[in-house]
Amino acid sequence: MDPDAVARAFVEHYYRTFDTNRAGLAGLYQDSSMLSFEGEKIQGAAAITAKLTGLQFQQCQHNISTIDCQTSGPAGGVIVFVSGSLQLAGEHHALKFSQVWNYLYLGLFFLHRMFHLIPTPQGSFYVLNDIFRLNYA
Amino acid sequence: MDPDAVARAFVEHYYRTFDTNRAGLAGLYQDSSMLSFEGEKIQGAAAITAKLTGLQFQQCQHNISTIDCQTSGPAGGVIVFVSGSLQLAGEHHALKFSQVWNYLYLGLFFLHRMFHLIPTPQGSFYVLNDIFRLNYA
Repeated sequence: MDPDAVARAFVEHYYRTFDTNRAGLAGLYQDSSMLSFEGEKIQGAAAITAKLTGLQFQQCQHNISTIDCQTSGPAGGVIVFVSGSLQLAGEHHALKFSQVWNYLYLGLFFLHRMFHLIPTPQGSFYVLNDIFRLNYA
Repeated sequence: MDPDAVARAFVEHYYRTFDTNRAGLAGLYQDSSMLSFEGEKIQGAAAITAKLTGLQFQQCQHNISTIDCQTSGPAGGVIVFVSGSLQLAGEHHALKFSQVWNYLYLGLFFLHRMFHLIPTPQGSFYVLNDIFRLNYA
């Protein structure tokens, strides 16, 4: 396994799915999966998918700036660390992030996110850990 | 084990050590440890400690803004995701980050970092995975 290739393929697949068919992300999570979204903790594929598909914006485009990855131990996991931006398409909603009002005019947000991918018996990976933070820098 | 308590205690210890006695970080890493520092991959406690102690600035102070944590699987690991800032004390060196020249006057940098902590037989934790990125937002 080449962890860099796994990480790149995962990130491309994840954000293409997020931006075009968000409900399709459900297949990447399992019941043991955890999401921390701006400090809110969510457990399990169903709740995580509900959170992601229920976000206030419907149209968006991610632009990924950096991808770092490392293997996470003998179980064959891969940690993926992503930085990038999120462009909302013409929807300048009042998101609940008071520190980033300045960006709202452009609908542009900067983010960091980490995924911990665990191999499945079918030869693919699922997301066990997922932590998301917007930048307030 | 309360992963939130582990994460808070680790972050406090790590950054207090970083800011006051950087060489003391060596005990937190092992030969299997990995550091990705602004995209550069470094393996093993000795090389990681050399990298961290050899950074161009000597005096600094970290201010941590957010700490997220999750358990990483049956082996008892804890993933810690940190955002914060790094204030350099009166040393406005020409760091090799062209995008952040604007911050140099203040010596202030924003960062994100993740640690994957693994329990040791002695009842403590070591850092298996460590990924660091400055923000260019």
